[in-house]
Amino acid sequence: MIDAELRRARAAANALALLTRTDKDAALHAMADELRVRTAEVLAANEADLASGREAGLSEALLDRLALSEQRLAGIADALRQMAGLPDPVGEVVRGSTLAGGLRLRQVRVPFGVVGIIYEARPNVTVDAAGLCFKAGNAVLLRGSSTAMRSNAALVTVLRDALAAAGLPADAVQLLDAGNRDSVKELMRARGRVDVLIPRGGASLIRSVVQDSTVPVIETGVGNCHIYVDATADLAAAEAIVLNAKAQRPSVCNAAESLLVHADVADAFLPQVLSALSAAGVTVHGDERVRAHSDAVVPATEEDFATEYLSLDISAAVVDSLDAAVVHIASYGSGHSEAIVTDSAAAAREFTARVDAAAVLVNASTRFVDGGEFGFGAEIGISTQKLHARGPMALPELTSTKYVVTGAGHTR
Amino acid sequence: MIDAELRRARAAANALALLTRTDKDAALHAMADELRVRTAEVLAANEADLASGREAGLSEALLDRLALSEQRLAGIADALRQMAGLPDPVGEVVRGSTLAGGLRLRQVRVPFGVVGIIYEARPNVTVDAAGLCFKAGNAVLLRGSSTAMRSNAALVTVLRDALAAAGLPADAVQLLDAGNRDSVKELMRARGRVDVLIPRGGASLIRSVVQDSTVPVIETGVGNCHIYVDATADLAAAEAIVLNAKAQRPSVCNAAESLLVHADVADAFLPQVLSALSAAGVTVHGDERVRAHSDAVVPATEEDFATEYLSLDISAAVVDSLDAAVVHIASYGSGHSEAIVTDSAAAAREFTARVDAAAVLVNASTRFVDGGEFGFGAEIGISTQKLHARGPMALPELTSTKYVVTGAGHTR
Repeated sequence: MIDAELRRARAAANALALLTRTDKDAALHAMADELRVRTAEVLAANEADLASGREAGLSEALLDRLALSEQRLAGIADALRQMAGLPDPVGEVVRGSTLAGGLRLRQVRVPFGVVGIIYEARPNVTVDAAGLCFKAGNAVLLRGSSTAMRSNAALVTVLRDALAAAGLPADAVQLLDAGNRDSVKELMRARGRVDVLIPRGGASLIRSVVQDSTVPVIETGVGNCHIYVDATADLAAAEAIVLNAKAQRPSVCNAAESLLVHADVADAFLPQVLSALSAAGVTVHGDERVRAHSDAVVPATEEDFATEYLSLDISAAVVDSLDAAVVHIASYGSGHSEAIVTDSAAAAREFTARVDAAAVLVNASTRFVDGGEFGFGAEIGISTQKLHARGPMALPELTSTKYVVTGAGHTR
Repeated sequence: MIDAELRRARAAANALALLTRTDKDAALHAMADELRVRTAEVLAANEADLASGREAGLSEALLDRLALSEQRLAGIADALRQMAGLPDPVGEVVRGSTLAGGLRLRQVRVPFGVVGIIYEARPNVTVDAAGLCFKAGNAVLLRGSSTAMRSNAALVTVLRDALAAAGLPADAVQLLDAGNRDSVKELMRARGRVDVLIPRGGASLIRSVVQDSTVPVIETGVGNCHIYVDATADLAAAEAIVLNAKAQRPSVCNAAESLLVHADVADAFLPQVLSALSAAGVTVHGDERVRAHSDAVVPATEEDFATEYLSLDISAAVVDSLDAAVVHIASYGSGHSEAIVTDSAAAAREFTARVDAAAVLVNASTRFVDGGEFGFGAEIGISTQKLHARGPMALPELTSTKYVVTGAGHTR
């Protein structure tokens, strides 16, 4: 039962909502300082997780995600200091007016209250999520993976100690027991006690939370992103964009997973891009018209076009028109980031108007769809849903609003 | 199965997203014209619903909600014309910047796509919801009550005919069969095919949708609203506000349902307000300290304080401090609209900061919390949730956003 944790989170949230920016920024710096001071304690806990992980036969990729080092921990602490430098979203007047009868109306940003985060292996998420939620005035309930439970516990202990030392409620940051499988379910059913739930992780985690949660959910991060190379594309730019979007960092949600090429430029473009992709170690899963240009292309199934590889693989197809590209993206895309490469203003306009996604890019790599790149400073994930927040979720997206109406005895 | 309706709605939504404001406003006027021309047809259908309702023994209040007249229908048509006069939210640039490397970033309002509305008896909701969704570029699936099925069918036929005559997709407005109980469940499970679901109606309808829906829901309209009369209140203003908030229109969600009086002014305020409420036909359900002031006050149970009466009833309690009022509201309130009457700036500041609701009012009646009163022109309901929209939901709240990123071959 996480009843006690929920009660403590609400009490902390009530106190957090009234803190000034000065208080919150000082606490973020105090958390960062404490992380530096207690590096050895955190790394020892992480070493224990890594040892269990090796015993349990975790893959090298997972072990790498889990691993902390002095340098990584310094980066995590620096991220907290950067959050301290961002504007406080709480108290921002979103709109305001004086109504006909003289009533004064203001719509003001306020914290959500209690935010739940369900996530997988990386321990840096623990600190990032705690820092962002705290800066936005929210108490956070963290439910990490059991693989990282000792690392997460050490990190949260440090953050809570820093809060307590600053005279602030330590319960602003709570870690739920990753050994208790029921805690995820309880979190999902705590409507009214948890204000919003953010699952961060793979498609199956997100699907299960979306299916079962009665708490409002913000869906993040599944990206089956396309690059469509139009008939009028600058083919050198197109090649650079495809390579960057696929190969610069294939494991992230804004990496490209599918290439669509207009039939008019297929002969000119495909030989060059296929050999460049091959040289970069990328396996291309192509339809027949793509395979006609290279024996190295493996046949694409229906499933390939629906797959977020997160690896050095890409699906590819030739399409006969921009319309066909838009229809393909509507069928297979996940609504994350979709790019067109074109020199035609009309084609760019049509693509950006018709493609329904969090971000639509013209002549730019999908890799730019990121809170840091967008200048938001830090993000808690990339929302692929249409409600509340769509695209990179930064501090303002971690708040709600409230109308404040001031009169002098006004009645209707 | 509503599969065909869902497919047609998506196709219509894709077309609607590309319409100009001129097209949409002309269509809204055409719908209004057609409603006037075909008044007799709609009233005949309504008469049939009323006859069935009388046979089924519906209450007079329900029959009144269901009833249309030439005058009511003219009002419904006029509401469509007013929507035509409101700014188009679609295409609004919410924010924009040029990033360090020269990429241009714009966040633009776009329609949700397909909106589902589940609602109860009033046929005016059919036209209001259809008009607002249409203006915001959304296709709408309407699931009304079986009590109003003939009226709703006649209204939707008229709207669809007007759309078709204007060369626009009639499937922008579809009515689901109210006789088919499964259609509500299918609507709630159509994640990805319905972009947002808005239940409008009583607490039990809203609770069931929130529980069972995998489609994102915007919760509307349950209002257990309080008036807190502080120690420093102007007691004449307080009395006027209490009477207005309770008795001006008791059946709506922004009517007051509970009165809290600071102990310091209980002796001065309660006798006068209790007799005024009694004169207005209001039954007061009070705690012991309220009952000490009048024999007409009936005892309040725990449940009374949690009840949204929607009638000439009000619960009442004496509290010892502003803090006690805030705690009471946090326990029993529904997060809709909460008012304080006070002459103390400090008390107003503390109340507005600490009370967690869509709207917090100082020295004004809760009845002002309304899209029309706020100057938004029209609303589809009052959201009491913290995600996406909180408070009156007007046209901008019926949209999502999309980032449009424009480069010149940019890569990371």
